Amino acid sequence: MKNYKVTLMYDGSRYDGWQKQGNTENTIQGKIETLLSRLQGEPVEIFGAGRTDAGVHARGQVFHVKLNTGMNAGELKQKLNRYLPEDIAAVRVEEADMRFHSRLNATGKIYEYRIHNSATGNPFLRKYYYQVEEPLNVASMRLAAENLTGTWDFQSFCSSKRSKKSTVRTIYEISLTKEEADLILTFHGNGFLYNMVRILTGTLIEVGLGKRSPESMREILDRKDRAAAGFTAPAQGLCLLEVEYD
Amino acid sequence: MKNYKVTLMYDGSRYDGWQKQGNTENTIQGKIETLLSRLQGEPVEIFGAGRTDAGVHARGQVFHVKLNTGMNAGELKQKLNRYLPEDIAAVRVEEADMRFHSRLNATGKIYEYRIHNSATGNPFLRKYYYQVEEPLNVASMRLAAENLTGTWDFQSFCSSKRSKKSTVRTIYEISLTKEEADLILTFHGNGFLYNMVRILTGTLIEVGLGKRSPESMREILDRKDRAAAGFTAPAQGLCLLEVEYD
Repeated sequence: MKNYKVTLMYDGSRYDGWQKQGNTENTIQGKIETLLSRLQGEPVEIFGAGRTDAGVHARGQVFHVKLNTGMNAGELKQKLNRYLPEDIAAVRVEEADMRFHSRLNATGKIYEYRIHNSATGNPFLRKYYYQVEEPLNVASMRLAAENLTGTWDFQSFCSSKRSKKSTVRTIYEISLTKEEADLILTFHGNGFLYNMVRILTGTLIEVGLGKRSPESMREILDRKDRAAAGFTAPAQGLCLLEVEYD
Repeated sequence: MKNYKVTLMYDGSRYDGWQKQGNTENTIQGKIETLLSRLQGEPVEIFGAGRTDAGVHARGQVFHVKLNTGMNAGELKQKLNRYLPEDIAAVRVEEADMRFHSRLNATGKIYEYRIHNSATGNPFLRKYYYQVEEPLNVASMRLAAENLTGTWDFQSFCSSKRSKKSTVRTIYEISLTKEEADLILTFHGNGFLYNMVRILTGTLIEVGLGKRSPESMREILDRKDRAAAGFTAPAQGLCLLEVEYD
């Protein structure tokens, strides 16, 4: 038995997200488990570091899986890339310590959100951005982003119902980079709540449109109420860039 | 009546190429003519600078069209981007001299061919490259490219049957650039014959794989026979980058 750490890229456009759910096989996890179960001759379960939603992409998703096929890392990488659909690729496969767990051992994550800020679309990137036609005030958005950086209770930026789990997270940095007509928001934190990056993005867009002030971010945090924050930006602009480990 | 010069980007994946052909409306030209004919209330014909094949992409295709709708350039751009499918975008619209002709006035063209030189695919670029798993010798390919630069009879690099038209063209430069796992071939010339860029690319790939020598390029040119050159690289790696005018 070996424990493998696999780093994945995928175009999430045609999938119902990462996580296997009931009968639907149309998830990234489902596709990979079906293939690995076939290779091993018995059911295999894989464990992803981040449960990306339907339509969300990844350049550095990580999962771990225990297999008794005896394959080395290179062989497993080759099998994955030969038999997985073209919109999923294994970019790195390593043999890991038997105790390695992709989600529990993760110390940080980096997400990217791409906003196409133009009335003219880009045919090549159209499935990977959210288009905002009105000009965005990037300076205001940067100020707002600074006000969201640090350790806070992000309950206002979380879609799921109140539970007993902590909603405190630390955002190390939110950077905003222009790339031609695109504005790329990069979120680096120790972890993110359900829909948190998309709600942060929606709120920052509203700041960029002048509907909210950069200073109002602290009030939203204080309210601890989802209704205080902005809209949930669409899934297709979001990409899981990297999962960090010590 | 006004004459407009329109610069287009398109993802050619789902089209039968640029040129309207018989009954098939599934061409870029067909989509645009249908829209403009609707706007004008009578049939409109557009004239493209390059007839890209099925599956070929463009970042800087140019067409001209004469319309009597009285629209200014900004209005036409807006209409095009509002009503065309998401995989076609008008990036620039200018009012041109009434004598301007997109193809006859073109003085040069730049094409790009993207080769993905890796056994691991890239889910985000998979529709825009041709994958070559075996390592390519880029230094040999550069030497071969130099031997193809200049003014030559490129009949060996042309798919169409012999005709009375000249097959002499000038290639100003063929550059090879590495971009992570991709090798990008950029062809700059005064014009290109049917399938010429794809046959040049196929031949250069065969050089990169060690099946041909860089020196053999001159022999291929001398033969003036399609069978002397390499394979026609697939359409999806090709993109019309720019059409040049004085």
